[in-house]
Amino acid sequence: MQLTTCERLSLNQITKDPWSLKEAVEGCLRAEIPSIAIWRHKLNEIGLAESKRIIRDSGLKVSSLCRGGMFAASTAEERGRRLDDNRRAVEEAAELGTDVLVLVCGPAPDRDIDSARKWVAEGIDRLVPFAESCGIKLGIEPLHPMYAAERSVIVTLDHANTLAERYRPDQVGVIVDVFHVWWDPDLYRQIDRAKGRILGYHVSDWIVPTPDLLMGRGMMGDGVIELRRIRGAVEEAGYAGTIEVEIFNRTLWDLPGDELLSLIKTRYTEHV
Amino acid sequence: MQLTTCERLSLNQITKDPWSLKEAVEGCLRAEIPSIAIWRHKLNEIGLAESKRIIRDSGLKVSSLCRGGMFAASTAEERGRRLDDNRRAVEEAAELGTDVLVLVCGPAPDRDIDSARKWVAEGIDRLVPFAESCGIKLGIEPLHPMYAAERSVIVTLDHANTLAERYRPDQVGVIVDVFHVWWDPDLYRQIDRAKGRILGYHVSDWIVPTPDLLMGRGMMGDGVIELRRIRGAVEEAGYAGTIEVEIFNRTLWDLPGDELLSLIKTRYTEHV
Repeated sequence: MQLTTCERLSLNQITKDPWSLKEAVEGCLRAEIPSIAIWRHKLNEIGLAESKRIIRDSGLKVSSLCRGGMFAASTAEERGRRLDDNRRAVEEAAELGTDVLVLVCGPAPDRDIDSARKWVAEGIDRLVPFAESCGIKLGIEPLHPMYAAERSVIVTLDHANTLAERYRPDQVGVIVDVFHVWWDPDLYRQIDRAKGRILGYHVSDWIVPTPDLLMGRGMMGDGVIELRRIRGAVEEAGYAGTIEVEIFNRTLWDLPGDELLSLIKTRYTEHV
Repeated sequence: MQLTTCERLSLNQITKDPWSLKEAVEGCLRAEIPSIAIWRHKLNEIGLAESKRIIRDSGLKVSSLCRGGMFAASTAEERGRRLDDNRRAVEEAAELGTDVLVLVCGPAPDRDIDSARKWVAEGIDRLVPFAESCGIKLGIEPLHPMYAAERSVIVTLDHANTLAERYRPDQVGVIVDVFHVWWDPDLYRQIDRAKGRILGYHVSDWIVPTPDLLMGRGMMGDGVIELRRIRGAVEEAGYAGTIEVEIFNRTLWDLPGDELLSLIKTRYTEHV
């Protein structure tokens, strides 16, 4: 069913990365986009206190904080540092008033992908009690397999579900990002399996030809992903939360911000 | 266990695409590489009869012909044309003296990936009797999910196994290419499942950062793939055939051919 309003729409900040947090918030207010997903490098530009003030004053809902994770490292010491950083991310998420920290779990430090996956599981396990004490749910986001070497050894919804199911749904869930999962022959079964555990739904599109591994995502409607079908499955699995538009694409970054947000809204109702 | 000789090594022609078939054959002979995998666009340059003569005179073994497939099309008429082309590929494979036609199954003609997958299954089903009558086995090669939109809707070994298992192992099997499958958390289970059905093993490497979706493959040893471990699993599953080096990389294309083949041989014994 078509989305007739933008009440579930959230602007993931990376979609207009050239904007500061303040500019992104003001852009959302002008465009009447009610939610925003915040990236930590944007917090760091102005500090947490100022970020918190900007968000609170705006009245915008924060759909998630991007991102925790990056758990896999060769030494226990470095894994400890990564865990500390994840605890800071949890605190930041709580301060900003969201209840979801998105986890991009990290690549293997070497060729040993099995150990990296074990370290990811351990990292999540160590983070859960602290996150719970702060009221933050951890959303494991499986990334596209083409990011397995550089960003995440968790590359299927199957694997993310398996990790998440070790915990209660109010502790750990999964993030479904269409760009990362659309190719999966097991997709609809895994979305159904994630019932009650979906903590976020991200949209963009897969454009053909794909210009670049990282910066080649497209605007909804410009590619081949069955957006409405996947949303239907996610909703069937009980998800009624925000829908984040998360697009890494320099051409879109370079558009005037208000024009970009207007385009997002149009494509959101037409295609998502 | 280390490969101490190059007796199982095969040069997949795309690794030195600038070479004609004649040049590739002569290069293999100089380098004492005993096998070659032939691409159809190289046959077309000089015709099948001349290609056949060059191969026969060389004494090289032909490990496979690349490629059949591309089954998915919107109209029955177009699917019929694709099938005709696959029949020609089967005949060419037989003429060249190999018993394996590699299938790159093709993308969806539109957003409807389920229908495309159905057409792939139908195309294989229609091709099997003819291939069998020519003594050719069909090797379904699952491609990396990043090629789902442009080259193949079959992107996991699980899916390829499921398609292949509808037939006898001497009719339809799978091709294991490390570049396409290394990221898969289900990899070793699926290799084991493919026991008796592995019709080819392809090596290259996944380099970091990955410069390009198509042309970004690396030389064995330059990337993160656990080459020896995967070969071990493939051999455990009964495969003792040729090992094709298949690398799409312009920097390697631009190397002097004899230098490239020498490098391949070194890396093959050191890393594969």
